[in-house]
Amino acid sequence: MMNNVSIVGVGQAPVGEHWGIGLRQLGLQAMQAALSDAGIRDVDAVVVGNALAGVMSKQNHLGALMTDFAGMRGTEGVRVEAADASGGVALRQGMMLVASGAAKTVLVLGVEKATDILASARLSALSTFLDNEYEAAMGATPVGLMALLMRRYMLEYNVELSCFANFSVNAHLNGSSNANAMFRNKLRAEGFAKASLVADPINLFDVAPEADGAAAVILTSTERAADMVPQPVRILGSAVATDRLAVHDREDMLYLSAVGLAAERVYAQTGLKPKDIDLLELHDSATIMSTLALEASGFAPRGHGWKLASENKIGLAGELPISTFGGLKARGNPLGATGVYQAVEATLQLRGDAGANQVKDAKIAMLQNVAMLGGTATVHILGVD
Amino acid sequence: MMNNVSIVGVGQAPVGEHWGIGLRQLGLQAMQAALSDAGIRDVDAVVVGNALAGVMSKQNHLGALMTDFAGMRGTEGVRVEAADASGGVALRQGMMLVASGAAKTVLVLGVEKATDILASARLSALSTFLDNEYEAAMGATPVGLMALLMRRYMLEYNVELSCFANFSVNAHLNGSSNANAMFRNKLRAEGFAKASLVADPINLFDVAPEADGAAAVILTSTERAADMVPQPVRILGSAVATDRLAVHDREDMLYLSAVGLAAERVYAQTGLKPKDIDLLELHDSATIMSTLALEASGFAPRGHGWKLASENKIGLAGELPISTFGGLKARGNPLGATGVYQAVEATLQLRGDAGANQVKDAKIAMLQNVAMLGGTATVHILGVD
Repeated sequence: MMNNVSIVGVGQAPVGEHWGIGLRQLGLQAMQAALSDAGIRDVDAVVVGNALAGVMSKQNHLGALMTDFAGMRGTEGVRVEAADASGGVALRQGMMLVASGAAKTVLVLGVEKATDILASARLSALSTFLDNEYEAAMGATPVGLMALLMRRYMLEYNVELSCFANFSVNAHLNGSSNANAMFRNKLRAEGFAKASLVADPINLFDVAPEADGAAAVILTSTERAADMVPQPVRILGSAVATDRLAVHDREDMLYLSAVGLAAERVYAQTGLKPKDIDLLELHDSATIMSTLALEASGFAPRGHGWKLASENKIGLAGELPISTFGGLKARGNPLGATGVYQAVEATLQLRGDAGANQVKDAKIAMLQNVAMLGGTATVHILGVD
Repeated sequence: MMNNVSIVGVGQAPVGEHWGIGLRQLGLQAMQAALSDAGIRDVDAVVVGNALAGVMSKQNHLGALMTDFAGMRGTEGVRVEAADASGGVALRQGMMLVASGAAKTVLVLGVEKATDILASARLSALSTFLDNEYEAAMGATPVGLMALLMRRYMLEYNVELSCFANFSVNAHLNGSSNANAMFRNKLRAEGFAKASLVADPINLFDVAPEADGAAAVILTSTERAADMVPQPVRILGSAVATDRLAVHDREDMLYLSAVGLAAERVYAQTGLKPKDIDLLELHDSATIMSTLALEASGFAPRGHGWKLASENKIGLAGELPISTFGGLKARGNPLGATGVYQAVEATLQLRGDAGANQVKDAKIAMLQNVAMLGGTATVHILGVD
C-alpha cells in the first residue's frame, strides 16, 4: 500500500564546505545518525540520492560504495539521480521498496560533495542538468535561466526585486538557529538590496549556495513503525512529475507544471488541500523558484506567490511556515541531498523535536524538491496523528 | 505483490557505434518499439538505467529528458545508476512502482552512448565505477582488475587461457544471427588464441566492447497483462545485492558474493534451482567474469565454471544456453542499457520470438547484470507457463 510507509529514523551531517572529509565519510555520518535514531543496526536496502559525485569526486556506483563503507556488505544498494531533486526521488524509490513488500526497512541517503571543485567546473557540471543540446551548449546556466524567468515575472506582474527579499530574510532567520545550517547569519532587507549581482536581477542573497551535505531517513511499514519508535511519521502522499526539460520549450515559462502536477497528485492521494499544510519545505534555490512553486502548488494565485513573503506569512509562526530550518538559501543546497534534508527537517517538526525552529502544533508537512528549472518535481506529504 | 509484475512489451535499438544520433534519439527508438510492441501509447512512469551520460554526453537528468523527448510530458521519470548494472537495477525499480500500486504501467529504458568520446576519457569515466580512492586513483582500471582475477584463477585452478575461449566463440556464434548485435562475425578458438592482449592474460576477444545502445521493456501487473497481450512474461524473482567495492577488500577475490547473494535470494523467492533455468543471460564482460558468476550462482562448483564453456554446454541447444543473442561480448556492452537488453532478449526467448536464436521450449530464464568487478549484482528470473 502506497500510504503505508513511515519514517522511523532521521540523521544529518552539517551542511557546508567539508574540505576535510570525503564523500563516503560524509554520507556515513548521516547513515549512522539515522540508524541510531531508529535504534537499529542495519536495513534491507539503501537508496542513495546523489547528483554529481561522478564528476565532483570521480566516484559513481554509490549504492555499492555506501553499503560497503557502512559495513552493510551485501545489502541492496542503488543510486538515483534527478539533478537537485535526486533526494526526493530517492525517498520515493525507497518507499516503493517498502510498499511493495520487497524490503522491511530501507535507508534513504542523500549525499553530495559539491564544493571541492573549481567554480567553473562546478558550473559546467550543474549545466548537465539542463537540456545540454539546446540550453547548456548555447551557454545557458541554471542561475542564468532563473534570472530570465525572474525578469519576465517582474515585467508580467509589475513587481520589484525588493518584493522577493523576505524569502531570503526568513530563510536566514530560520537558519540562524539551526546548528546544521551553512549560513547562520541573519540578513536584513537592506542587505538583500545591496548584494552584488549573480545574474541580473538575481543577486548573491537571492540564490541558494551549492554545498556539501548528507542526510538520511529510515523507512519501514507503518504497522512495524509503531513497534519501533514512539513517534513515527507517516508518508501520506508521494508523487514525481516532469516538465519539458528546456525552459524555452514550455508553453508557459512562468508555470512550473511539474510542481503543479506532482502537487495535484498528492492532494488527490491524501484528500488534503493547501490550507491543510502546517509547514512547507520548498525548493528555494532562488526566490523566483519559491514564488513560482507556491503558485503552481496552489498556495497563491498566479502572480501573487511573492506576497506570502512580502506580507511575512512564511515565518515559523506564520500562516504557512516555509524553509523552517533555513531552506536551501541558509541551510544550503547540497544538490542530491537536499530532498532528504527536507524529509529530516519535516520529521523533526512533526515529532516536536525542532527546538528553536519548532512550528507549533505541526501535524502535516509538505516537501517540494525541484530539479533546477523544474524539469523534475517531487512532492511528499508527511503527517502525524 | 513482488511476483505480480509482467513484461508486456519489449523494444531495442541496434547495438554499435552510433555516431550519427544522440542519446535522446537512441533512447526514443527503444521506447517507441516497446510501446508499439505492448500496443499502448503512454505509461505512468519511466525509469531510465544509464551509467555515464553525464560525462559522455554532458547530459544528466535523463528522467525528464526522455519523458520530454518521447512526448510524455508530465510523466514520472527518474534515472538510476549502478555502473553497468544500471539496467538491471532500473528493471527492479520499475517493478517496485507496479508492485506497490504506485503505477499501472512503467517503461524501463536502458540507454547509453559510450563510444562518441576519446578512449582515454572513456577509460577514466569507467574507472569512476571502481573505488576511486583506493583503486582508480592508483591507476587500476576495470579490465586491469579483471586480468588480475583471471591470472589468480588460472594459477589457483591450474587452467590455461584456451579453457575460456568457448565463452567468446559461443557469444559470437549467437551474435551472428542477431540483427541488433554489434559484432556478427564468427570467431574460432584459434582466432581467440592469437588475439592481441588488452591486459595480460585478457585479450581483445576475451573482453566485451563498450557500445552505444538502448533497450526498453513495459511492465504492468500480471493481472492486467493477461488482458493486454497474448503472451506476457512474468517476473518471478528479483534481487539486488552488493559486495565490497574494492576487489582488494574482499575476503575471497574469486567469489562474486553479490552474484551469490542475489541468486540465493531469487532462488528462495521462486523455489527454483539452477537446474530449472532454461537459459541464462549472464554478464560476460570478460570470460573470467562469466566463469566466476556461473560458480557464484550455483551453475558450477568453484574452479569449474569454465568447463561449461570448454565442454560446450552453453550453446543454444546445450544444457545451459548463455548469451543467447551474443551477450556482452558480441551483442556489445552498452553499460547502463545492458541489463535491459538482457530482459528484452529473455522475453523474446520465452515468447518463442527469438527466431534463429530460439532456445527450444524455453520457459524459465535468468538474467544476471553485474557491475564491473561485481560491486553490484542484479538477478532476475522470468517465466511463462
